[in-house]
Amino acid sequence: MLSQSVLYDLRKAALNLRIDVIRATTASKSGHPTSCFSAVEIMTVLFRYYLSFAVDRLHCCDNDRFILSKGHAVPLLYAAWKMRGVVTDEQLMSLRKVDSVFEGHPTPRFPYNEAATGSLGQGLAIGLGMSLASRIDSDRFITYVLLGDGELAEGSVWEAAALAAYHQAPRLVAIVDVNRLGQSGATMYEHDVEQYEKKFSAFGWETFVIDGHSFEEIVDVFEIIKDRQYDKPNFRIAIIAKTIKGYGLREFADNPKWHGKPFTEEEAAVVIKKLEDDNRAVAPQFFGPETQCLQDRMKSLNRKGIDHYDPVIPFTGVDLQKDENQALFERGKKMSTRKAFGYALVALGKTNEKIVVLDADVQNSTFTEFFAQKYPTRFVQCFIAEQSMIGIATGIEHRGLIPVAATFGAFFARAYDQIRMAGIGRNALRLCGSHCGVSIGQDGPSQMALEDIALMAAIPQSIILYPSDAVSAYYLTQLSGSYFGGISYLRTTRADTPILYDQNQTFTVGGSHILRQSNHDVACVVAAGITVHEALKAYELLKQEGISIAVIDAYSIKPLDTKTIMDVGQLCGGNIVTIEDHYEYGGLGSMVAMTATQHACRVTMLCVKELSRSGSPEALMKLAGIDADTLVQTIKKLHKMS
Amino acid sequence: MLSQSVLYDLRKAALNLRIDVIRATTASKSGHPTSCFSAVEIMTVLFRYYLSFAVDRLHCCDNDRFILSKGHAVPLLYAAWKMRGVVTDEQLMSLRKVDSVFEGHPTPRFPYNEAATGSLGQGLAIGLGMSLASRIDSDRFITYVLLGDGELAEGSVWEAAALAAYHQAPRLVAIVDVNRLGQSGATMYEHDVEQYEKKFSAFGWETFVIDGHSFEEIVDVFEIIKDRQYDKPNFRIAIIAKTIKGYGLREFADNPKWHGKPFTEEEAAVVIKKLEDDNRAVAPQFFGPETQCLQDRMKSLNRKGIDHYDPVIPFTGVDLQKDENQALFERGKKMSTRKAFGYALVALGKTNEKIVVLDADVQNSTFTEFFAQKYPTRFVQCFIAEQSMIGIATGIEHRGLIPVAATFGAFFARAYDQIRMAGIGRNALRLCGSHCGVSIGQDGPSQMALEDIALMAAIPQSIILYPSDAVSAYYLTQLSGSYFGGISYLRTTRADTPILYDQNQTFTVGGSHILRQSNHDVACVVAAGITVHEALKAYELLKQEGISIAVIDAYSIKPLDTKTIMDVGQLCGGNIVTIEDHYEYGGLGSMVAMTATQHACRVTMLCVKELSRSGSPEALMKLAGIDADTLVQTIKKLHKMS
Repeated sequence: MLSQSVLYDLRKAALNLRIDVIRATTASKSGHPTSCFSAVEIMTVLFRYYLSFAVDRLHCCDNDRFILSKGHAVPLLYAAWKMRGVVTDEQLMSLRKVDSVFEGHPTPRFPYNEAATGSLGQGLAIGLGMSLASRIDSDRFITYVLLGDGELAEGSVWEAAALAAYHQAPRLVAIVDVNRLGQSGATMYEHDVEQYEKKFSAFGWETFVIDGHSFEEIVDVFEIIKDRQYDKPNFRIAIIAKTIKGYGLREFADNPKWHGKPFTEEEAAVVIKKLEDDNRAVAPQFFGPETQCLQDRMKSLNRKGIDHYDPVIPFTGVDLQKDENQALFERGKKMSTRKAFGYALVALGKTNEKIVVLDADVQNSTFTEFFAQKYPTRFVQCFIAEQSMIGIATGIEHRGLIPVAATFGAFFARAYDQIRMAGIGRNALRLCGSHCGVSIGQDGPSQMALEDIALMAAIPQSIILYPSDAVSAYYLTQLSGSYFGGISYLRTTRADTPILYDQNQTFTVGGSHILRQSNHDVACVVAAGITVHEALKAYELLKQEGISIAVIDAYSIKPLDTKTIMDVGQLCGGNIVTIEDHYEYGGLGSMVAMTATQHACRVTMLCVKELSRSGSPEALMKLAGIDADTLVQTIKKLHKMS
Repeated sequence: MLSQSVLYDLRKAALNLRIDVIRATTASKSGHPTSCFSAVEIMTVLFRYYLSFAVDRLHCCDNDRFILSKGHAVPLLYAAWKMRGVVTDEQLMSLRKVDSVFEGHPTPRFPYNEAATGSLGQGLAIGLGMSLASRIDSDRFITYVLLGDGELAEGSVWEAAALAAYHQAPRLVAIVDVNRLGQSGATMYEHDVEQYEKKFSAFGWETFVIDGHSFEEIVDVFEIIKDRQYDKPNFRIAIIAKTIKGYGLREFADNPKWHGKPFTEEEAAVVIKKLEDDNRAVAPQFFGPETQCLQDRMKSLNRKGIDHYDPVIPFTGVDLQKDENQALFERGKKMSTRKAFGYALVALGKTNEKIVVLDADVQNSTFTEFFAQKYPTRFVQCFIAEQSMIGIATGIEHRGLIPVAATFGAFFARAYDQIRMAGIGRNALRLCGSHCGVSIGQDGPSQMALEDIALMAAIPQSIILYPSDAVSAYYLTQLSGSYFGGISYLRTTRADTPILYDQNQTFTVGGSHILRQSNHDVACVVAAGITVHEALKAYELLKQEGISIAVIDAYSIKPLDTKTIMDVGQLCGGNIVTIEDHYEYGGLGSMVAMTATQHACRVTMLCVKELSRSGSPEALMKLAGIDADTLVQTIKKLHKMS
């Protein structure tokens, strides 16, 4: 039983949160007040009595983590942080304005937001990542994730739930706000909370079903969690809270017509008055002064802690010439770029202990297995659950670790929404996609990444690196790992390819290498990855016929070394030919074209224009017209015309 | 108890399937024989005794549907179809060759493949779509989906499972081949079949746990299903089959090192000999003649049926001038393109009863609610489960219906792998993404589609239509619905925009409209959607200063009307300015540039180059530099330089 003073304190705090939510959304003329209201009692108890957080030490390792997976309820979160003293009323009232960091869905521009959310169903995997990071770092915080019932329709939630149980993720709490109503109508199970209870239970979680508006029941379950935090930290608890959308506002409560609508100023005044009157009627002492003991409790949550978060760890130089596998990288030998990535990861893992590698059951194809064997405690097996792999990586990155997630390039498509959101979250994910292009051969189009450059390039701040040989793959892996500015994507190839570069060659983000050039080149061929080898073959074939071309290895696809490409292109009479193992739209060719129009260069694009199929790599490259022969024909045609 | 003759028949058939799998994968020097072997007994029973299919009537409405969700086991499927007499041995042996339709993972180039698979976890949603299509069409077939245990880690499977139960999908059977091993190691639950049983049960399915190599147990459960097909068709059954990867081949069985590896010719000969010997030892009569009754049974499965599949239904003309809402579309009025899409869908639904609309709980934002109210039986609520929405649409489309799936454009990112696979499956999905661009305003970046054009354009055969006003939205909806060549994507805008076009204006795929042009234009502005209105504003502002520009509404983003754009561009001295509410890479500007390099036109791109935020639409467009003012400044600068 809660004491009267605690109960009054909670009621008063809840009332203030509701009023703040109304004020903020009314001022911004948009937002989701009723979606906030169902979670007010939960947030009141959590933020007032349980969430342990050094408010002036954002990265304190003892801070509990809170992720608002139902991102549209963010006004409530801002109001809760106001209650904790980190947001002023003026700031709260700047909600959704262009010069405010208090956005309509959580983004890290307000740094107390632990993750960018707003695309539903993503919070649990991110929380799981933070929980797993706490194990790696020996931290002891609790990770709370508040979900809406509607978003439990997203499969990504169940992926994350299964992985959390498999990995015995420590101190992870999912709170489901079952308010029965989605945006356009009732949710799948409405108030049948047993459905959620059964599912979480089947996925290996401990469950508590509570009345989400009963302070008593909320406190009871948070007390259980608190008791276990240090002694029995191996818990994954789902709190299924039955709630009412719009709770507290009689005519707007449980009303399917009232989603994502703020009140007008007149409505707000009436509603706030009514809220105050209702509370006053029930508890006249309600507006009395706070007791000292409650104030102390509240303050004790804002405790200090050790800050071991160190977001940017510079990479010490990794030198291939000192690598134990150095001999495998000698010029003339062959090695796939995916394997070189595997070796490089091990070298990086040695110099930087913050690196954590994530796999989706293809470690023996991407060659992250080398890392897994060497550093098993920093390797996270995500099974065939790419969405959760990215979600976990995002959570891990937010805790100051350096996640490298690898799978077939094609399968990042499965997690593209998560990657998009990590972009909005300014999370520096290092991704490596193997098996890119038609050159994988027999496995066929479902396994070929042919749109991955378009996908990754679209995201602001991203970089894309695409090695053509093992040496460049080794160093580009290091560059990718060292990039803290956003998403970095390394594109690797299945086949063994000849080593082109000396082991002391240097590579830079935004760089390229001119592999062939003379003073009488008829065209500048811009290639990357597997097509560099086709370009070099074409060079030899054309040479026999007395035709000379320049060949550029554009290993940095984004940012692209447009200066070098345009300079060389202009020396070739403006004739640029791009050749790439990627679809037509959004690939290397289109990027070259974007600049070329300003430099009077003509771009002829060789790329994959139609769906591919099964076949030998050679046959498929020929079919797509991205082989040496097609390049030779293209150059000859250009030469003839000019 | 099965009779000896049936048992022998099954054993012999199973032996032949195994041998065929070995022969085909050995001949192709690639493939996944051991992943096939765990499912041989299941496939033998299903294809020899239960799968009812008019083999010469591919689209027969009585045909049971079979979807191989674990697509890498496709050699087994081809061998099973060989057993059914639709594949010759020569065809089987062409597996994975470039001139063969027998690809390494299922694609519809072999027309008995009901879906393109190979990206795991997608088959169940597609099967669910077929099951729901059977309800719409009053068909009575059973839909079987064979899944691997590894792919149950994909959340998409559980999304589909939940939706199937919610919609009471008729005659849907999931068979899970629990062979314990994934590609790179053990699966999450290995042989703990109870885990799968619990999960399917919690998601509302009836479950049967069987020994997947026991003909008796397999037959028992298929008998139960058969008994219910007509009388109690409302079933969703999950058969959890405990199996051994590589079953039948002693040294390769249950061996984690043997994934995706074919046998060499020498190994194959030894293995086949051993298989034959093992079987001969157990059942000497084994190689006796087939009994007449078994032959008849087998033939009876290949039955005839009515073919009501009619894949291409031409759209009868929809005329806005005869629409009951015609008055709302008058020039000068305002209406959002998303709302016009909603009206157009209703009109199309009236003329074409094959149209089925799918929603992900945003019908009141995309305006598919108009259709839902009018044609509730052809409206599928997928809740917040975009991956399943696309999977269901794919299954529905394969059954000859015309699916239109709509959500926020940003959230198609969640289902991009499914869209990619539908592209490979040649499924004509009609997609509509609303709330595109920074112009949505306050809700912030998580809700803005800013990479959707890049995503959709990458897919071969796709078209992208982007209306600027309600009239064009109405007709482009019709064009999108009428496109049977692949994925079509309609991009709509949140805000109400002025109606620009007369109601008898015509629009074509690949077309554009020149809205402003004179004989002294200094630049050709190419806009689409919301930015058309900014371009028209800029036109007026520049006119006041005596500067004239051409304005093109490029409503068909892909295919793009490059002829008109280049012609007008050249008349403007080669100055083209693109302005779009989309990220820099892969959008309209890059597409214009791809052609412009060949036409001596210079392209200046105004687009969204950085992450956006919350704010008013006007403020965000200004911030991104895609507003009329920025356009005016850009044109003036160009004018000055030229």
